[in-house]
Amino acid sequence: MFDVSTIQAAAVLIGPYVVRTPLVESAVLNRRVGGRVLFKAEMLQRTGSFKFRGACHRILKLAEAERRGGVLAWSSGNHALAVATMCAELGIAATIVMPTDTPAPKQDGVKAAGATIRFYDRRTEVREEIGLEIAARTGAVIVPPYDHEDIMAGQGTAGLEIVSQAEALGVRPDLALCGASGGGLIGGIGTAMRSAWPDLEVWVVEPEGFDDVGRSLRAGERVGNVPGPVSICDALMAPMPGEVTFPVHRRVLSGGVSVSDDEVRAAMRVVFADLKLVVEPGGCVGLAALLSGRVALEGRTAVVMLSGGNVEAGLFAGVLEG
Amino acid sequence: MFDVSTIQAAAVLIGPYVVRTPLVESAVLNRRVGGRVLFKAEMLQRTGSFKFRGACHRILKLAEAERRGGVLAWSSGNHALAVATMCAELGIAATIVMPTDTPAPKQDGVKAAGATIRFYDRRTEVREEIGLEIAARTGAVIVPPYDHEDIMAGQGTAGLEIVSQAEALGVRPDLALCGASGGGLIGGIGTAMRSAWPDLEVWVVEPEGFDDVGRSLRAGERVGNVPGPVSICDALMAPMPGEVTFPVHRRVLSGGVSVSDDEVRAAMRVVFADLKLVVEPGGCVGLAALLSGRVALEGRTAVVMLSGGNVEAGLFAGVLEG
Repeated sequence: MFDVSTIQAAAVLIGPYVVRTPLVESAVLNRRVGGRVLFKAEMLQRTGSFKFRGACHRILKLAEAERRGGVLAWSSGNHALAVATMCAELGIAATIVMPTDTPAPKQDGVKAAGATIRFYDRRTEVREEIGLEIAARTGAVIVPPYDHEDIMAGQGTAGLEIVSQAEALGVRPDLALCGASGGGLIGGIGTAMRSAWPDLEVWVVEPEGFDDVGRSLRAGERVGNVPGPVSICDALMAPMPGEVTFPVHRRVLSGGVSVSDDEVRAAMRVVFADLKLVVEPGGCVGLAALLSGRVALEGRTAVVMLSGGNVEAGLFAGVLEG
Repeated sequence: MFDVSTIQAAAVLIGPYVVRTPLVESAVLNRRVGGRVLFKAEMLQRTGSFKFRGACHRILKLAEAERRGGVLAWSSGNHALAVATMCAELGIAATIVMPTDTPAPKQDGVKAAGATIRFYDRRTEVREEIGLEIAARTGAVIVPPYDHEDIMAGQGTAGLEIVSQAEALGVRPDLALCGASGGGLIGGIGTAMRSAWPDLEVWVVEPEGFDDVGRSLRAGERVGNVPGPVSICDALMAPMPGEVTFPVHRRVLSGGVSVSDDEVRAAMRVVFADLKLVVEPGGCVGLAALLSGRVALEGRTAVVMLSGGNVEAGLFAGVLEG
């Protein structure tokens, strides 16, 4: 049974490796949205996103014999960076299966960590097939991006920090908003936060056309995205909620909303201006939902996850210029 | 005598009002500079810069009768924002004398806090004269941007935090780098850090053409900047070290270097890419000095102050696009 104790155990294990990221707020931004918002600044996590928490946890739990065979992961970027960096720290060989259109900062980071990259074409190749073939051939252990209890537990440690940081401020939030690709982060932090605050609303926010978690919640079963749409949120493009994560979503999530690319861009500009933080498109969908009124704040207190900051300079500059 | 106990007393007084900003680092950036750098992220301070610490402290120390007469300040922006915000919090009337070319985000913040603004032209008017005239007429108390022990002590509290945060990491830095306009921040944090680490080198970094603190240190007396130069660092343009701050500079600083606008722009890009933080030009001169080799790191550990993040979106976008 995946519950808060699973996440607490993960926090003990990964504590020496991860950054306890700050919970930040801005009086100007609070006035702007008509409520109080506490932001978990996971772009300040190692490798620039929350993904490091999950990868770190899974890799630390590998047995010595498993580590010797190396690690394999597929990822659009942030998970790749996290796996490559943690493997480098522990002296484990890492192979990353990564789409050719991965943003340059994420590619560069993976290379700098010394991992081997196998590029693939999103349109013509299936990354899982490539990864499974390499793993079968080399004996590498697969570290999946979300669909594993160790990953969800590691990512959920951000939720334990949120609880402790909000309590230190004397705040009990009414709602929380977080993006989802496969849903490891929101499953983990939702579990951690709902354990402390049973009445907390937890909203999943997804890009338009990639709202598989929201639609699956409404359907009561896992449904996939229809191929075709594009989104500025390169980190939030998983095709379907995970087998491991979805039962947790059904337990802890209140519902889901979608946001447009323009709403995401507006949120990036607000994070820049009011919080002085760099957030990637997929990292600020929660704020986009509040700013656009898709989730109502109305004088209440929200926790918003800012899940990562790995964004190309040119894209960010274009967003700032509106 | 201004010493660490002055700063410790300030820390007690302002503790409930200020953010304990994080000390952050990046493995990628450490590799880039060939040493270890801990960054004090003061753009995450209230009002987006370290200035809030000093203004908060000075204003809290005003007597009830003084508060009733209102507060007056002159500032290129960050001090204005800080004074206006603290006055709003305590219900004190604030008047700000501000140059017409103040970046829009700083102007907007001052207006949002409800302060009265008196604009002046940098080329034809002297802000001190305008401010003294208003203060004489209205009975307002002047809260100066740097040249007051209460300001320097409040700003110095960032140094106490650096010491405690570095010690929690088990780190004893070899050098520290910080920008200076009138030098309240570097005087304060230099005093705090040298008290804990007597062998620490403390370097002042200034924009080319505005290196009054560095030249005054070499001259052994306060010398002013020659009028004429321009700089991207709108926050670092004071004409001369302060009367109160300079004796402290002579006690705690190791020397000064200057950096060019292009070196500052390069540092802003690195802070964006590696730290995921928004820094204004004047906020990252310390890193500019390391990246350009004007101060040698050579495997040592440095503390670098990132003093603020109030920068216009258009300027920031232009910097990112190189």
